[in-house]
Amino acid sequence: MIDNNRPIGVFDSGLGGLTAVRQLIKILPNEDIVYLGDTARVPYGNKSKKAIIKFSTQNTLYLLKFKVKLIVLACNTSSSFALNRLKYNFKIPILGVITPGVKAALEVTRNKRIGIIGTNVTIDSNAYQNKIINADPSIKIFAKSCPLFVPIIEEGWLSGKITSSVIRKYLMPLKNAKIDTLILGCTHYPLLKPAIRNIMGPGVKLIDSAKELAISVKQLMDKEGIACKRKTKGKARFYLSDKPYRFKSTGEKFLGQEMSHVFSAKESELG
Amino acid sequence: MIDNNRPIGVFDSGLGGLTAVRQLIKILPNEDIVYLGDTARVPYGNKSKKAIIKFSTQNTLYLLKFKVKLIVLACNTSSSFALNRLKYNFKIPILGVITPGVKAALEVTRNKRIGIIGTNVTIDSNAYQNKIINADPSIKIFAKSCPLFVPIIEEGWLSGKITSSVIRKYLMPLKNAKIDTLILGCTHYPLLKPAIRNIMGPGVKLIDSAKELAISVKQLMDKEGIACKRKTKGKARFYLSDKPYRFKSTGEKFLGQEMSHVFSAKESELG
Repeated sequence: MIDNNRPIGVFDSGLGGLTAVRQLIKILPNEDIVYLGDTARVPYGNKSKKAIIKFSTQNTLYLLKFKVKLIVLACNTSSSFALNRLKYNFKIPILGVITPGVKAALEVTRNKRIGIIGTNVTIDSNAYQNKIINADPSIKIFAKSCPLFVPIIEEGWLSGKITSSVIRKYLMPLKNAKIDTLILGCTHYPLLKPAIRNIMGPGVKLIDSAKELAISVKQLMDKEGIACKRKTKGKARFYLSDKPYRFKSTGEKFLGQEMSHVFSAKESELG
Repeated sequence: MIDNNRPIGVFDSGLGGLTAVRQLIKILPNEDIVYLGDTARVPYGNKSKKAIIKFSTQNTLYLLKFKVKLIVLACNTSSSFALNRLKYNFKIPILGVITPGVKAALEVTRNKRIGIIGTNVTIDSNAYQNKIINADPSIKIFAKSCPLFVPIIEEGWLSGKITSSVIRKYLMPLKNAKIDTLILGCTHYPLLKPAIRNIMGPGVKLIDSAKELAISVKQLMDKEGIACKRKTKGKARFYLSDKPYRFKSTGEKFLGQEMSHVFSAKESELG
């Protein structure tokens, strides 16, 4: 029997996955969380598939040392390239960020025209596209990689002329294609939601994959009977493989609250 | 006696340093070059000083296996944080990208008002600023980090409205401060030269650090008597610690020619 009070393990290539932790804390306030951000090797999006599988395996092994009860991949790149391999190799329940986003989009769309945005690697992996087509081949998919969104968010330009122009440049083709649902396929993107909504208009539903991921975690834990039984507020601990420039202020932007209990993930254990 | 026909070793955190190789090939066409791009851990700019020193030491040791006759750090972040340590630890001549850029700027400025642009880490390291002040305390320095330039260049948006707006947003304060010299303190930036020149006007001299670095390499080799004696065209070999998404097309943009002889740098040797 698994101990229900064990923590949930979450990993990401860097700090962006803290948007998922933010949603987990909101939806599952009593759970303990151990977060691993592989800040020494961030971003994964410009690495090879082989490297991403290797890094993701190391991250999983690292989290297992904390006796986590399930593992959440709060990283689109890992979810695209490494999730199947991890599920095949490890016994513990593992959730990626793609399936929950796709599920929500399929529930929400009326006209069966769905847009997907993400980094180059996420879009080119076809992970979202394949999942959607397998579920419903009649869906029309409009995918677009938006490599400038992450640096714009990290620069803090969440609104203003340049941001609108960049959003328009990337998203007008999707708007013109009359999508009614848009999957934000990158953990950074929720911070751009208001600006994206301004361009796309109220007729387009925005799917926040971090939020959908947290909902799926709750559903899985309820189903497996592994939800925490304590009634007190859970604790979150953050392990980073490097403590980079401005990591605290950047992390807190994603987390939406103070980031205390930050530790170093020993590099020898991550390779 | 050192064998003059040994190759020049060059390393960078990724592919951006190929702009320096491009200049080396132009200025020193007969030299053999071994380039190491640490594409598995790129970028260094968002890592800690400790990580950057460790990575740079590993890269140096890797290049030494090729019996290189000198080592060039075509990486502003490594040059800012690791150059002194490397020079202290290793016997071989080692050149960074900062001193040559500063030297050129000091020769060119008339009104003693110099601008410096680079990534967050390069600017915050004060490496350029300190070098200039030490050489001439009467210089007025205007430094600005431009974190959106690299992704804009990698997206291929070398001109157009968004690019002009971003350049204007970053550089108008420097233009208003009446600088007459601007150091492009990042290996990617030379590709934005025409767009930057459009905004800054012909009165501002742009210092291309990759080019100045290549000139310094030539001067050093002449002084030490280690320039290659062959009269035939040199060969360049490229070692990458990961072969990422679109690496060939991205690399060739920086290199300005076809990138053949690309090999894997064994990860076990880089850690």
